[in-house]
Amino acid sequence: MKTATLAPEQLSTIDAYWRAANYLSVGQIYLFDNPLLKRPLTLADVKHMLLGHWGTTPGQNFIYAHLNRVIKKYDLDMIYVSGPGHGGPAVVANTYLEGTYSEIYPHISQDEAGLQKLFLQFSFPGGIPSHASPECPGSIHEGGELGYSLSHSFGAVFDNPDLIVACVVGDGEAETGPLATAWHSNKFLNPVNDGVVLPILHLNGYKISNPTLLARISREELEQFLRGCGWMPYFVEGFEPEAMHQAMAATLDTVVEQIKHIHHDARVNGNLTRPRWPMIVLVSPKGWTGPKKVDGVQVEGTFHAHQVPLHPNAKPEHLKLLEDWLKSYRPEELFDERGRLKPEIAELAPKSARRMGANPHANGGKLLRDLLMPDFRDYAQNVRQPGILGIGDVHVLGPFLRDVAKLNSEQANFRVFGPDETLSNGLEALFEVTKRQWDAATVPNDEFLAPSGRVLDSMLSEHQCEGWLEGYLLTGRHGVFNCYEAFIHIIDSMFNQHAKWLKVTSQLPWRRKIASLNYLLASHVWRQDHNGFTHQDPGFIDHVVNKKAEVVRVYLPPDANCLLSVMDHCLRSRHYVNVVIAGKHPAPQWLTMAAAVKHCAAGIGIWHWAGNDFDGAPDVVMACCGDVPTLETLAAVSILRQYLPDLKIRVVNVVDLMKLQPQSEHPHGLSDTDFDALFTTDKPVIFAFHAYPWLVHRLTYRRTNHHNIHVRGYKEEGTITTPFDMTVLNDLDRFHLAMDAVNRLPQTGNEGISLKQLLQNKLLEHRQYINQYGQDLPEIRNWQWKE
Amino acid sequence: MKTATLAPEQLSTIDAYWRAANYLSVGQIYLFDNPLLKRPLTLADVKHMLLGHWGTTPGQNFIYAHLNRVIKKYDLDMIYVSGPGHGGPAVVANTYLEGTYSEIYPHISQDEAGLQKLFLQFSFPGGIPSHASPECPGSIHEGGELGYSLSHSFGAVFDNPDLIVACVVGDGEAETGPLATAWHSNKFLNPVNDGVVLPILHLNGYKISNPTLLARISREELEQFLRGCGWMPYFVEGFEPEAMHQAMAATLDTVVEQIKHIHHDARVNGNLTRPRWPMIVLVSPKGWTGPKKVDGVQVEGTFHAHQVPLHPNAKPEHLKLLEDWLKSYRPEELFDERGRLKPEIAELAPKSARRMGANPHANGGKLLRDLLMPDFRDYAQNVRQPGILGIGDVHVLGPFLRDVAKLNSEQANFRVFGPDETLSNGLEALFEVTKRQWDAATVPNDEFLAPSGRVLDSMLSEHQCEGWLEGYLLTGRHGVFNCYEAFIHIIDSMFNQHAKWLKVTSQLPWRRKIASLNYLLASHVWRQDHNGFTHQDPGFIDHVVNKKAEVVRVYLPPDANCLLSVMDHCLRSRHYVNVVIAGKHPAPQWLTMAAAVKHCAAGIGIWHWAGNDFDGAPDVVMACCGDVPTLETLAAVSILRQYLPDLKIRVVNVVDLMKLQPQSEHPHGLSDTDFDALFTTDKPVIFAFHAYPWLVHRLTYRRTNHHNIHVRGYKEEGTITTPFDMTVLNDLDRFHLAMDAVNRLPQTGNEGISLKQLLQNKLLEHRQYINQYGQDLPEIRNWQWKE
Repeated sequence: MKTATLAPEQLSTIDAYWRAANYLSVGQIYLFDNPLLKRPLTLADVKHMLLGHWGTTPGQNFIYAHLNRVIKKYDLDMIYVSGPGHGGPAVVANTYLEGTYSEIYPHISQDEAGLQKLFLQFSFPGGIPSHASPECPGSIHEGGELGYSLSHSFGAVFDNPDLIVACVVGDGEAETGPLATAWHSNKFLNPVNDGVVLPILHLNGYKISNPTLLARISREELEQFLRGCGWMPYFVEGFEPEAMHQAMAATLDTVVEQIKHIHHDARVNGNLTRPRWPMIVLVSPKGWTGPKKVDGVQVEGTFHAHQVPLHPNAKPEHLKLLEDWLKSYRPEELFDERGRLKPEIAELAPKSARRMGANPHANGGKLLRDLLMPDFRDYAQNVRQPGILGIGDVHVLGPFLRDVAKLNSEQANFRVFGPDETLSNGLEALFEVTKRQWDAATVPNDEFLAPSGRVLDSMLSEHQCEGWLEGYLLTGRHGVFNCYEAFIHIIDSMFNQHAKWLKVTSQLPWRRKIASLNYLLASHVWRQDHNGFTHQDPGFIDHVVNKKAEVVRVYLPPDANCLLSVMDHCLRSRHYVNVVIAGKHPAPQWLTMAAAVKHCAAGIGIWHWAGNDFDGAPDVVMACCGDVPTLETLAAVSILRQYLPDLKIRVVNVVDLMKLQPQSEHPHGLSDTDFDALFTTDKPVIFAFHAYPWLVHRLTYRRTNHHNIHVRGYKEEGTITTPFDMTVLNDLDRFHLAMDAVNRLPQTGNEGISLKQLLQNKLLEHRQYINQYGQDLPEIRNWQWKE
Repeated sequence: MKTATLAPEQLSTIDAYWRAANYLSVGQIYLFDNPLLKRPLTLADVKHMLLGHWGTTPGQNFIYAHLNRVIKKYDLDMIYVSGPGHGGPAVVANTYLEGTYSEIYPHISQDEAGLQKLFLQFSFPGGIPSHASPECPGSIHEGGELGYSLSHSFGAVFDNPDLIVACVVGDGEAETGPLATAWHSNKFLNPVNDGVVLPILHLNGYKISNPTLLARISREELEQFLRGCGWMPYFVEGFEPEAMHQAMAATLDTVVEQIKHIHHDARVNGNLTRPRWPMIVLVSPKGWTGPKKVDGVQVEGTFHAHQVPLHPNAKPEHLKLLEDWLKSYRPEELFDERGRLKPEIAELAPKSARRMGANPHANGGKLLRDLLMPDFRDYAQNVRQPGILGIGDVHVLGPFLRDVAKLNSEQANFRVFGPDETLSNGLEALFEVTKRQWDAATVPNDEFLAPSGRVLDSMLSEHQCEGWLEGYLLTGRHGVFNCYEAFIHIIDSMFNQHAKWLKVTSQLPWRRKIASLNYLLASHVWRQDHNGFTHQDPGFIDHVVNKKAEVVRVYLPPDANCLLSVMDHCLRSRHYVNVVIAGKHPAPQWLTMAAAVKHCAAGIGIWHWAGNDFDGAPDVVMACCGDVPTLETLAAVSILRQYLPDLKIRVVNVVDLMKLQPQSEHPHGLSDTDFDALFTTDKPVIFAFHAYPWLVHRLTYRRTNHHNIHVRGYKEEGTITTPFDMTVLNDLDRFHLAMDAVNRLPQTGNEGISLKQLLQNKLLEHRQYINQYGQDLPEIRNWQWKE
């Protein structure tokens, strides 16, 4: 930095812009009225409840102002991700200054009245939250739960070659697991087809009440760490505004030119070696430019600046400090009489869609293009008769997803994510047309690795898969996350935050709907034959159904044709979270494609071919949901029909779990009449369920016949064993199910008693055989449904 | 390494030991019989189902053998943590070789018959899983779900100054978020009072079907990364056994001496500056010493070695390859005629409790000492009358935990963990007697940081808190994890694994019970006044109750005295997961300490002083669970009693959530008779619940009066607003609850109709007032229970 990057006038403008944003931030935290300080500040001008967070704000305002400058200078297509928690005042202030806020919310106008409303609404009941929440234009990342800024940012730039995401990473956030591993995302970025993430690690040194780790190791160690993560860090450190402006401007110019250089090298010279992407470490005081000391305690540059540093309501002497603080930004130089940012300052911001608050990438639905879809019926399993053995349902789905990837390779808006499980989950067909995107080193025996590809599954991190996919969806694209069922719990809390985002954005008319987040849980609880107990947990759907009914959907297709139909539906849907659970092992197929389409459209239905309640008045309903429960139910039905031929059995299969809930609770819920028509009002229902049995009760407790519903499911019993033995351990096997039916039907008399004895004997025989041979009885292994 | 570390004889012994472990590992994966290959291998000797994982095994066997050597040489107190997934064959083989396995499982004897059983049981129904599961002596870390080896290891060494945990970190595992941030645990280790974690990053280069990231960056970049994480890495790289033995032995000697040097410097010279702890990077081929090529495909050194490389059942030509592979270890040199490891080889292993499989730290219950407990009654709030305002329940708990910390400071077996939230969660009293343990740099304005302390809360990572605490508990100590309620979901999957561990270990008589894992969720869904929607999720308890009833407990104390009683109980309990939800804001107090003790002992009860069903025949039951619901219920009761004085109301409060479940489902569950006595068999029950309302239905659906239970709880409505408005948004406020009661009691006639009108008006008035002033109505703010 021999010569100053900013000419005196530029320096003065950028400093004024920063001051304006800081002024608006303090105003949001404190002011009820008197937004331009036209009269001396009184307690009546101050909000009663002071809520908000100052600490991170001035640093983010500083960054935003400087990004505005380089966007204009280089005509960059850039969005802003606010990683540190509680960055709300900064992003709101800046999108207001650049004009986008008032365009979306005209009542928050760019004048004194608008300012007053802007200030009042912040952290005020009925107003807006203190994070970069969905209400704030330009945001794709709320930052309420920390740790996902980098993975969201990378998700956003995949297949967006011109986009740069400036991702501010909080130094508190940087201590979370998800963020710590997300630094390595740079090994998956293709310099030709993808855009760029510019991380700006904001080292303001403090969290809520602790210092941050990265601020308390030596700069040398920090630099080693970031270089070890594959980055080229540039440090901007200090507190004196003028020097900091010059340093930040110079560094941003360097960084942008380095990015351009890398792009040129890759895109023109064809150099695809993983580059060392630049990043910035901004070392500035927490609560920078705020009160230095309050009540004798150092505030600026300490964790005491985290929230609200002054409390005029409780301590009237703070009122003057607040007024001095606000005036230190010299608002009279920044805003005209009417409260409008002076034009020479406003000039700093980019125009139109280049403004970070107006960039369409941050309102992804605007850019969303429908997927080009093959006809899923073309991938059908030929089910000549119910019960023929398939190759594994997910293996049938694979070619369909392969062709989705292929058809959309040009518009480059579909990706499959997974934590090193895409092959294990049975989606090998994808690699017939695409690769795993990977930009680290390769060696001859590697499989399917390439600098570009539609699959991102070479990092063993569910957090990364989820964060990348969310970022990809939020910027208007489509995708599927394939994962082991048990380990999807690793991202429970990320799902929470995404579901909350969907709920809130669905209520904001200016936010366009985005593609659904599709989970394919393909290695499920019942088939962990060589993994055992640690890999058995079907509870993700319990977690999912706690979120708003409008945004969650759960599907358990019983066979491959149903899986195809369901996945086609999910990929076309918008603004949901779809959970699809399917098996990858060879399993019986039940429905022709025509029947599957009809069954999935209804979401639930009677399988007439399997039952014998031809008069529509069954003695017992055998219900099932999930592939393994369906198999065991049909096996139980065939036992019952053989030994109790007079018994009238109805078989009900559930694909769309939310059908079970009342219509008032979920848009997919069956009316009580329809539910009663399926499950009767008074007959025993033996319900074989994929997951924890209580979930069915939680969904059906209001139904007429609920007290007759007897559910079997996973009850935390399991180890390494055969798939059939897994069902036995959890009382979900055919013998237990048949016994459950007989127990509920005392009228079966002596026939029933001897059948129960037979079933007990079968269970004993199974236990003895498996203990001796480690296998299921041949009659179990070779069992097939017969009409 | 000028002169060889290992003399020829030592080299030959350690290599033999390694070969023996490898032989036993391959035997476990494959052999049904013929364990010593006394006759030519036939297909009948091979298991039908071949399950297991070879890839990681030989590297771990190599490490284990070398650790045995240094344990003996330096008389080390060391345990082994197997981070990579599916390390089962290695840890089982080694604990068998050292003799601990047969001591615990005498039928797996150290002879040919025992070998056959050892081989057969592995990954066999009724046998043992393929991880370092609880069944395996010496294990505190199963490694089924990846990512927690380092945090578990650090948890184990806190307050164990002589313990070294050799923690093998898989290079796949290293890509997970939790592991990525766990490298930084070294900033929290006190070189005087704590032991040492020796990470051994096993860079075998591959995961399931992908290379690993850390193996595909340059060694220079990897070294920068590890140094940037604060470690001093030593590389041991190669594949030629002799050279590798020498390199590993020399490196381990160096590392042990460096650890001794650091300890001396800290413990004798008083140097408490954070040292650069040593670690090892072992670069060895995946599937080392296994088949090089199979069917023309490279196996050793690729991901093809991950699982079972040969399939003799499917491909008979593999039988010979398997036999060759087994014979390559020259079993006849390793085992005597009877199948016993030859004494000169067995000599390598340490003796007695120095054996890693027999080290009592890995069976923590053996070392568990009861906490010295102050009398919690001494910390009671003086509740002169129900409804007086307390200072915040957790603030009352603080001094109790402070004194637990103080009383046990000498036996150093109690710690409090939290992600930078211990102050925010209201436990400031702890810092009157102890500090936050922190070994990075400090500056003058820091608060409560010191190289040693009972609190570990300076890292913003729920994963770290959970992993550290689990490691601490598993090695026989006690602790509490304080966390925001919403963000405890971040460790849902870690909780899963710990609960599974507790379930399995409780069935192993030789595993002693450990202290319970106690969660204190102190910043809960109803009081996120300045955080809003992202911080609102009370669903952790839904997740928890899916696990085995024997190991999970959930408590929602309504006030401070109940919280004290509950926490005292939790800290004394064994082998549970206890979830305690409590508020930190000033809130009404209801029970004297005597009443609280009685109430908490019962777990549920009628608050006679609040109701008026003096004849024991109420018209309505107003039930509540949680502090905020209790407040709103009592406020609703006072409205009802004022406006409908003839109505007979019973108030039931629930502290122990599992009381609601049937006795058959949970050991705490009430009998149906007792439940009916509380909730009646036919009267309306208005149930105000802390969390998602459906949970109450899931727990009570079998109860007689279930159809009359009307539950209000959190239904995903919320933002930044007042605590009272939060209840209004979710229909849990006093007005809605009173209205619910009236709606269920049509017999209230005109009085009821006019009360409903009044309640509707109140809600309108509230909405208008809060929109205008951002505050609750004065009558809400100032409301107090009156007898």
